[in-house]
Amino acid sequence: MKKGKRVGFSKREVLTLAQAAYSGNPLFAVDPKKTALLVIDMQDEFVKPHWTPFWVPDATRIAKRVRRLVDYCRSKKIPIIFTAYSRTHSGLDRPKTGAFMPNRYKGKVPDNPSYFRDGRIWHELVPREGEVVIHKPSYGAFYDTPLESILKNLSRDTVVICGTLTNFCCGTTARQAYERGFKVIVGSDVTATDDSQLHEAELKTLRKGFAMVTTSTQIIRKLKRRMQGS
Amino acid sequence: MKKGKRVGFSKREVLTLAQAAYSGNPLFAVDPKKTALLVIDMQDEFVKPHWTPFWVPDATRIAKRVRRLVDYCRSKKIPIIFTAYSRTHSGLDRPKTGAFMPNRYKGKVPDNPSYFRDGRIWHELVPREGEVVIHKPSYGAFYDTPLESILKNLSRDTVVICGTLTNFCCGTTARQAYERGFKVIVGSDVTATDDSQLHEAELKTLRKGFAMVTTSTQIIRKLKRRMQGS
Amino acid sequence: MKKGKRVGFSKREVLTLAQAAYSGNPLFAVDPKKTALLVIDMQDEFVKPHWTPFWVPDATRIAKRVRRLVDYCRSKKIPIIFTAYSRTHSGLDRPKTGAFMPNRYKGKVPDNPSYFRDGRIWHELVPREGEVVIHKPSYGAFYDTPLESILKNLSRDTVVICGTLTNFCCGTTARQAYERGFKVIVGSDVTATDDSQLHEAELKTLRKGFAMVTTSTQIIRKLKRRMQGS
Amino acid sequence: MKKGKRVGFSKREVLTLAQAAYSGNPLFAVDPKKTALLVIDMQDEFVKPHWTPFWVPDATRIAKRVRRLVDYCRSKKIPIIFTAYSRTHSGLDRPKTGAFMPNRYKGKVPDNPSYFRDGRIWHELVPREGEVVIHKPSYGAFYDTPLESILKNLSRDTVVICGTLTNFCCGTTARQAYERGFKVIVGSDVTATDDSQLHEAELKTLRKGFAMVTTSTQIIRKLKRRMQGS
Repeated sequence: MKKGKRVGFSKREVLTLAQAAYSGNPLFAVDPKKTALLVIDMQDEFVKPHWTPFWVPDATRIAKRVRRLVDYCRSKKIPIIFTAYSRTHSGLDRPKTGAFMPNRYKGKVPDNPSYFRDGRIWHELVPREGEVVIHKPSYGAFYDTPLESILKNLSRDTVVICGTLTNFCCGTTARQAYERGFKVIVGSDVTATDDSQLHEAELKTLRKGFAMVTTSTQIIRKLKRRMQGS
Repeated sequence: MKKGKRVGFSKREVLTLAQAAYSGNPLFAVDPKKTALLVIDMQDEFVKPHWTPFWVPDATRIAKRVRRLVDYCRSKKIPIIFTAYSRTHSGLDRPKTGAFMPNRYKGKVPDNPSYFRDGRIWHELVPREGEVVIHKPSYGAFYDTPLESILKNLSRDTVVICGTLTNFCCGTTARQAYERGFKVIVGSDVTATDDSQLHEAELKTLRKGFAMVTTSTQIIRKLKRRMQGS
Repeated sequence: MKKGKRVGFSKREVLTLAQAAYSGNPLFAVDPKKTALLVIDMQDEFVKPHWTPFWVPDATRIAKRVRRLVDYCRSKKIPIIFTAYSRTHSGLDRPKTGAFMPNRYKGKVPDNPSYFRDGRIWHELVPREGEVVIHKPSYGAFYDTPLESILKNLSRDTVVICGTLTNFCCGTTARQAYERGFKVIVGSDVTATDDSQLHEAELKTLRKGFAMVTTSTQIIRKLKRRMQGS
Repeated sequence: MKKGKRVGFSKREVLTLAQAAYSGNPLFAVDPKKTALLVIDMQDEFVKPHWTPFWVPDATRIAKRVRRLVDYCRSKKIPIIFTAYSRTHSGLDRPKTGAFMPNRYKGKVPDNPSYFRDGRIWHELVPREGEVVIHKPSYGAFYDTPLESILKNLSRDTVVICGTLTNFCCGTTARQAYERGFKVIVGSDVTATDDSQLHEAELKTLRKGFAMVTTSTQIIRKLKRRMQGS
């Protein structure tokens, strides 16, 4: 690459392309008959106000919108799969270095609190008879769980992701779904985390390379349109 | 939760805890005899200036620092594993929705360009005889590859991650290593992406819940300290 | 390869080598501090006499010997992990073609029987407080479960496999453990199936390429020897 | 269970049921548009007469029949995926205890022979341009490889398995395909191993719980029937 005679892509060009992609979105058809809704970790630990140091205020705030999405899916027989981060297998199935992480808030957390054990889903979103709840040991809902097998059995190739935290369990699950060949849709106003800038940053990264990111209203619109046969 | 008699954690408390965790770091011992260096996708496609629309200028900038880390690891017999995003299995092994993603820059990319096929490592970092190169089909270096088996055979429980792009292949690989039980260290000044804010955002998320994030100088210092037996 | 001047390996030689390997055994050190006992599917469905069409009479017969192995491991603090084939996630996590298989005994099985739902461990082997039970959706104990993560957390690199059925859940689990890098030991007299010839055939295949196969007495002897420091 | 008043299933009944299942077969529809042919390890190491101690004489014998199946699939645009057991990643990706196994024939094998390195497909079956060859590090073709992703991209939900050795790479691959939700068909006269009794035993186990097992003529007939729309 000689100076003065540069060919190819300039720094400005490549960074402009990158920025455009961060505000872009993949385009793919969404078939409600092939879609499942994943409600990630909308459990008391994160949603119930003031209850634990892990409370995510924005998760409480989005609960009603998540409920609206859940209701729509129920009305259209789109399967809903709930996940909860819980104390499965006496905690022996947690990733080995998890206990070292700053997000464990050591010193702030009593020994083996009930919200770690139970993974109870927040009352506004309580699963109905027959709706699957996956109690998972880590961030990503696919790792060490049968989520992919369940989606195969339901003949689903598309997942809509909502829940909390955007940049932990939701984002990791989105990456895993993408790598397993699913079409991934992430709801921008039905996911929540504990830092609004990191919420936005996560969504930018997802929309550039992993998932369609859009509002719950748009998601319902897309599902409806197909329902009406267009 | 009655007003005026609130118990438990206030909104301010939980958000303050979250912020502290985002600038925290997990603490774990680093044993060079158990560590491997992963050099992620430092390939011409991303590093060679002006060559492709996928050029990441900051990846070019960090190459010398990555080389310093590589040299240190070589000198101490710490195994180095290179990855490259390449056209393996005629491209049939790519995640199914990859082609739809905005980061494919449709219209900007010739048909089957050589940089997609070869995954050639950038000349400053060319692997030596006996160093493993994994040609991978997706972002995460563990998915659909034998990386975990290789690390097991080398008796490694810790990985140091450097390379590009911070918020795609590096970040996804860090999440995967974490879930597989590895201690994960991400080099803050030996990873690069195409947006400095998203670089910082990714590192914040990683350090809160997935990985120790620190400079390459600090990484070498940590490895040295243990080498000297303390 | 010219006739009359054949070089290399004769048919007789290669078949003789193969036969020798089928009655051979891998040699590796067994460290009780790195070993876990897997008790595969010793549940009422298979062990309780006369109770279900899936009863394996030889599984009932080996229960006492399995108990002896369990007792030995308990006495030496070797972790024991039980598995049971159960109705997890409303059965939605079962492999898609399972329902077609001849071993489902259609017409012989009532609708959703309790032995499918519960996966209750046979009373002679009931797990103690703190011993892990993995309720699994398929034959192999590693597939879609966190078994490998649990073994990593317990720092185990060796698994002893006992239980039922030798050529289904035990054999599949042994293959999976082998591929994940574990040292695998299969108990020849603490596994059982519904056909003695297929029991022997399975053990031959395992010992040639996947696992050390030996009696429970020998397994205890090996564990003891190391306990005594030799 | 009181003596004298026994209810439920007698020992004879359950063993009779088991035997019936071992000679049964799952019934499922086979759609050629959803089917891929897997040709497992028909490589010089195993097929070329007299060349290595790993030669499987029956593998040489079935090569022509495998070729007929390959030709049929080519003529009908059914994708063919070849696998070969090769020296990938300097051998560092092999399962950790592999080297201890009796089937490595220590003392009979030169150091790093070419048949370990190359995994060259036997000349009667040489892959055509565009046909995928997966160089795999272990028995099962799905473990640590992108085979499942490739099958997803090709929209295949059914695999036909042929090749060698019946009770190692073919059988393990069949188990893995079953667990991943595929319909699995194993060719009884297009698989081979080094012991005819173990060949039969493996097929019995597979047909009871994992796969449809039938002759290559029957497989072609099934594929044809669907091609003709019935």
